[in-house]
Amino acid sequence: MKYDRIYNFSAGPSMLPLPVLEEIRDELLNYRGSGMCVMEMSHRSKVFQTIIDEAEADLRALMGIPENYKVLFVQGGATLQFAMIPMNLMKNGVADYIVTGSWSEKAYKEATKYGEIKLLATSKDKSYSYIPDVSDLPISEDADYVYICENETIHGTTYQELPNTKGKVLVSDQSSMFLSKPCKVTDYGLIYGGVQKNVGPAGLAIVIIREDLINPDVDTRIPVYLRFDTYSENGSMYNTPNCWAIYVCGKVFKYLQGIGGLEVMQKMNEEKAAVLYDFLDQSKMFKGTVEMKDRSVMNVPFVTESKELDAEVVAASKAAGFDNLKGHKSVGGLRASIYNAMPKEGVEALVKFLRDFEDNYGK
Amino acid sequence: MKYDRIYNFSAGPSMLPLPVLEEIRDELLNYRGSGMCVMEMSHRSKVFQTIIDEAEADLRALMGIPENYKVLFVQGGATLQFAMIPMNLMKNGVADYIVTGSWSEKAYKEATKYGEIKLLATSKDKSYSYIPDVSDLPISEDADYVYICENETIHGTTYQELPNTKGKVLVSDQSSMFLSKPCKVTDYGLIYGGVQKNVGPAGLAIVIIREDLINPDVDTRIPVYLRFDTYSENGSMYNTPNCWAIYVCGKVFKYLQGIGGLEVMQKMNEEKAAVLYDFLDQSKMFKGTVEMKDRSVMNVPFVTESKELDAEVVAASKAAGFDNLKGHKSVGGLRASIYNAMPKEGVEALVKFLRDFEDNYGK
Repeated sequence: MKYDRIYNFSAGPSMLPLPVLEEIRDELLNYRGSGMCVMEMSHRSKVFQTIIDEAEADLRALMGIPENYKVLFVQGGATLQFAMIPMNLMKNGVADYIVTGSWSEKAYKEATKYGEIKLLATSKDKSYSYIPDVSDLPISEDADYVYICENETIHGTTYQELPNTKGKVLVSDQSSMFLSKPCKVTDYGLIYGGVQKNVGPAGLAIVIIREDLINPDVDTRIPVYLRFDTYSENGSMYNTPNCWAIYVCGKVFKYLQGIGGLEVMQKMNEEKAAVLYDFLDQSKMFKGTVEMKDRSVMNVPFVTESKELDAEVVAASKAAGFDNLKGHKSVGGLRASIYNAMPKEGVEALVKFLRDFEDNYGK
Repeated sequence: MKYDRIYNFSAGPSMLPLPVLEEIRDELLNYRGSGMCVMEMSHRSKVFQTIIDEAEADLRALMGIPENYKVLFVQGGATLQFAMIPMNLMKNGVADYIVTGSWSEKAYKEATKYGEIKLLATSKDKSYSYIPDVSDLPISEDADYVYICENETIHGTTYQELPNTKGKVLVSDQSSMFLSKPCKVTDYGLIYGGVQKNVGPAGLAIVIIREDLINPDVDTRIPVYLRFDTYSENGSMYNTPNCWAIYVCGKVFKYLQGIGGLEVMQKMNEEKAAVLYDFLDQSKMFKGTVEMKDRSVMNVPFVTESKELDAEVVAASKAAGFDNLKGHKSVGGLRASIYNAMPKEGVEALVKFLRDFEDNYGK
């Protein structure tokens, strides 16, 4: 590849589009005649205000975010959202969680600190290898919201249909699928994503929240940094935000617009994933770990018949110039994260490698 | 200047050393043969582990941080520390605060959410233009700590001597003076700094904390992201950190080592500040707003006789290629932030501009 870059299958942080990186390099010492790098800019300057305003406007255009939703730029990743969401959204002190993997489980555990949390459904019985039926769950009558992790990065599952929340607010962690396909924002009360998987560098979560869910009368003992109204009332700049991450995400938004938007991105992602899944489904050595109907287009975990062979494949893949294919310790095996910025050629090269490995194994 | 860069007097984010930016540019598309940008790296990879380990080791060497102090990399800036510090450090529920400007005032207000906070001393009576006598204050008998902001970015004051805490733990916000001069770490229980003023890009605070102050038995209702033990037990990587900011800060630490360490940096900073203060002290048009003994070497606020003239100077300075000289709205006038990365030539150019302005005014 150009610049001797490699195909990086990391679950996150992960690949960024090359044209975005080239632009950043070219602007690094002097951003568009400002005489400084974006890292050196006052967040109160006009030049940075334009950067954050454009990033928000481009994201709104890409996702079709209605006017009655706010876009917030928050540090602390999904982990901080696990606390901010119950702290800010609970009025009755009740919320329902669907647990489909490590990330929704962490969110669930954190939420139990702040109210009465019901475990509405879980797929733990089969090692989180599927998404439970969510069409008719016993939603709590006074639930302030229903929480899902829409794509489980570690377990490689994704929702094909959103849960029937029976009128309650739906909150979704979209971290590992953010901007991978079109999204009907009005189906949700709150969508958030750590950007470091599909969109930008680590250190930023984007929160899209329906205005009426921002509670200015939230418990005053909540840290000012953790109140959603702190962000909505100050254009995400009550204090200095992660300016650099906002700048990079803004470039990725423009890149996505340039290739034709999220419909085009979805088509590319589905084609890429099909290359890998088609191979796995006919392989005698490798098999996917997730029920076919619930497979993620972004994170593809797979295994061989033994841990020893898994390790052999991982080692050989590294030697062949692929990186980060080792599965998460909680699942084992291998995992290929094939986010927006992974080119189809990368997946094809991986499949060729796996096919050759299988064909030549033991010969 | 090279690359048409300008002298940027922003209070933060602010200038970074040019050699650091050049290195970042050169590594942007492929970091040292890894085949990827640092923004694309898994934080669990060996290559990133080396980056964070080296950054910590270099910071420890620069500041002489003893082994019984932990170095934590936390998102959320000083604003999040305003909450994390009382939440984590209070055992008796009592803390004493010295308020010398906007930042210690914000910290004080946030802390009152979490315990009984005593306002030990303040310089509000004279618009925070001095540091009160802190040699013999009525420290609370059961104070868990005494809190200061050691350099007030907006008001331009700095402590010449640390408060006599009568044996209590001293906590210091060093954001706008971090690494500007040598620091005797053992004088403190906790030192922290948002890095976006003197060290790196926004989105990272560095916390240096004495081990015994990290309380694993802290109230379990504190968000996991806000517990110091979350960071100390996981090498600051319980979740994905701001990898990019850690990378840039690491480069700045190496740069500081390269020029000879913090003694050399202090000498350079004092020389720079003297150029500006010497001019202000003899000027008939401009005067500094801070009592001479408490002047900051980093942030230099000054005024003319009227707001109208202040605004005229700011406009002329911008036209002359200087940026961000407008004072904070709460103080007015002008402010030159002359952090580590501001070259002496920048201050000399500013003084020449101010002198010319004064000489030619009304002619």
